[in-house]
Amino acid sequence: MITLLAEIISVGTELLMGEIIDSNAAFLAQELKNRGVFMHWKTTVGDNLARLQEAIERALSRSDLVILGGGLGPTDDDLTREAILTSIGEEAVVDEAYLAKLRAWFEARGRSFPEQNIKQAWVSSSARAIPNPVGTAPGWFVRVPNSSKIIVAMPGPPREMKRMWAEQVLPRLELPQSGFYFKTFRTVGIGESHLAERLGDLAQLENPSIGTYARRDGVHVRVAASAATLEAAQALAESSEIAVQAKLEGFIYGTDEQTLPEMILEQLRSRSQSLGIIESISGGIMSDELTNAKGSSEAFFGGTVAYAAQAKLKLGVNPEILEQHGAISPQTTAALAQIARSSFGADWGLACTGAADNSFGDSMPAGTLFVAIATPDNQILEFKSVVAGDRRTMKERAAFNALGTLWRAMKT
Amino acid sequence: MITLLAEIISVGTELLMGEIIDSNAAFLAQELKNRGVFMHWKTTVGDNLARLQEAIERALSRSDLVILGGGLGPTDDDLTREAILTSIGEEAVVDEAYLAKLRAWFEARGRSFPEQNIKQAWVSSSARAIPNPVGTAPGWFVRVPNSSKIIVAMPGPPREMKRMWAEQVLPRLELPQSGFYFKTFRTVGIGESHLAERLGDLAQLENPSIGTYARRDGVHVRVAASAATLEAAQALAESSEIAVQAKLEGFIYGTDEQTLPEMILEQLRSRSQSLGIIESISGGIMSDELTNAKGSSEAFFGGTVAYAAQAKLKLGVNPEILEQHGAISPQTTAALAQIARSSFGADWGLACTGAADNSFGDSMPAGTLFVAIATPDNQILEFKSVVAGDRRTMKERAAFNALGTLWRAMKT
Repeated sequence: MITLLAEIISVGTELLMGEIIDSNAAFLAQELKNRGVFMHWKTTVGDNLARLQEAIERALSRSDLVILGGGLGPTDDDLTREAILTSIGEEAVVDEAYLAKLRAWFEARGRSFPEQNIKQAWVSSSARAIPNPVGTAPGWFVRVPNSSKIIVAMPGPPREMKRMWAEQVLPRLELPQSGFYFKTFRTVGIGESHLAERLGDLAQLENPSIGTYARRDGVHVRVAASAATLEAAQALAESSEIAVQAKLEGFIYGTDEQTLPEMILEQLRSRSQSLGIIESISGGIMSDELTNAKGSSEAFFGGTVAYAAQAKLKLGVNPEILEQHGAISPQTTAALAQIARSSFGADWGLACTGAADNSFGDSMPAGTLFVAIATPDNQILEFKSVVAGDRRTMKERAAFNALGTLWRAMKT
Repeated sequence: MITLLAEIISVGTELLMGEIIDSNAAFLAQELKNRGVFMHWKTTVGDNLARLQEAIERALSRSDLVILGGGLGPTDDDLTREAILTSIGEEAVVDEAYLAKLRAWFEARGRSFPEQNIKQAWVSSSARAIPNPVGTAPGWFVRVPNSSKIIVAMPGPPREMKRMWAEQVLPRLELPQSGFYFKTFRTVGIGESHLAERLGDLAQLENPSIGTYARRDGVHVRVAASAATLEAAQALAESSEIAVQAKLEGFIYGTDEQTLPEMILEQLRSRSQSLGIIESISGGIMSDELTNAKGSSEAFFGGTVAYAAQAKLKLGVNPEILEQHGAISPQTTAALAQIARSSFGADWGLACTGAADNSFGDSMPAGTLFVAIATPDNQILEFKSVVAGDRRTMKERAAFNALGTLWRAMKT
């Protein structure tokens, strides 16, 4: 099995200066890992020719595949092509056919072609322009002369980079048949340490290996295996996958890229049921997450954020309940779940309330969370737990805790 | 004026592999820039001693200040201290006083002290442990022997890093009096190109310079000036600041770190008024943003996410309006604004509806956005605009567009 080493260079003063966060590098690292390509270095460098060239040369000295992101625009600040050419000792030539395409693109939009854009049609003996499926800046695919090394340059905007990577770069890379296999199980309702206890000796395995990762939506468990071929790796992982599923029964809501809101919506749609929610401490994140999924309105009828006590009263919570038990209590939460169900005309009602800080007395420390569910047969289920972290983290954890509680209630 | 060069090394295989996004480096880059410290390089390296050491040595060869993030935990994978020691040729010594403090921390929580944690009490001739205000892993502050260079190591969790940076590292760094001055004006209701037109020749200035940045919450305009001292730089910037404010009157909602939701809540509180919202296309993001501000419940009474048409009916929109004009229309949005005001018993009602995709016919392309505001004297204000981007981006832009519209309505 060949081991390929890759290295990422992100180009741009804005990135270096922290004005934007570099999500491209994270995406590429994940993509490479999933194909069994190892990455040891990631460098960020500003729009400076000498430093960019230094970074490329160092990368070529220690890695097989160098991926550059950014610096492919038409302006004087865009120096990625220039730096690559100096590093490999070649000169730019204008690809007239590509230039004609660029000119046509502008013409079709009724715009005059800015002459500085000519450099976007540059190629060289070793460098080929690769089309940008969603923008004007083409990428570059470079077979480094007198070596088996490759340089790939892609545009900075994530939407352009991701499409170019999938449609243009991956096919050209002809990566060796990957002998790496991964499967991620996504769980809710169980903390990392309890999960580790359940996994027991499984966590000691080396190949396949089993790793746990605390994420904002719950703990993820990843089974990884390597062998000569993907099929062999998958076969190697199989018994561990079965063991993980058995030990975590009832906690796994999905695998790989399946999100909790998507799985809840799928459950609802498959039963022709619907959901209404009222959230307090999570402050809108549950609705936000549910509506990120396309077609969510079929099953998610609506949500209300009732942050102030006054809002809970206005929604119709019995004033006596509020008076006697308080705005943050199992009783108020149960009442809100019922109202969530009835006010949106939904089959399921979900509500949460909680203490975002310590202003509610000793009996209710910051992070106290109440979740209630009104079921289609109008039963009320009540849950209590604690979420930790700063204000924002608590809001997120409360949202995913409540959604996870609903998912588990629907499955039982 | 002394020019300092800094360099950031982010440590951790999880970072390198793209499993988490490195927001620390972005924060630090911004902090350094605001103090006039230049940064030319940012490197990410996995939990590997040889490569970590190589990165530190290269950084020391070209920068004055090397800031490491991560790798300070107690386990075998945490190698930052080891790599620094090798790079500067020193040996670890246990700081007994610090060790006693660590032991006490565990004791106070009824937990036994794990002996591997001893390395968190390491120091050396040049390295001092610096307290972690919110966690157990201390940082390191290293005056590199026989040079004026400094190495700083801080923990990976952003909450710990930020507090340690502000409270422990910055005072120790004794950065030279900065001659850099920055002021950011945050705008709503105007696009980047129209804003540039208004600024006109101002954008050509070099010192002070004026830059525009499109952000998720609107366009930011930054005035930057450099001089021998901060005071001189500030004086240099003053006339440009006044000019920017004059040219963008009515569009600037805040400066520097002031967020739009905070400024809306401040407006409301200063008038003893309150807000209720109903959001459709923005799917909960408005509520989420408003409740991120501490004490938001005083003025933000609540919000409803009415994604499905059925939810709009249930909220009390006149069925004839829905029938005649559709769920996404100025008329429905106006009705929702009135319901937002009345149902939460608030002074102001804010509502938005919009088309998240192209399924609503030619007359309503994806991104069409309607915003309506019910004022305290029960007038209804209606607005229409278009937001672009993928589903998630459209949701965010719709949320900030609607909040910005409210802010502008409150100011007039």
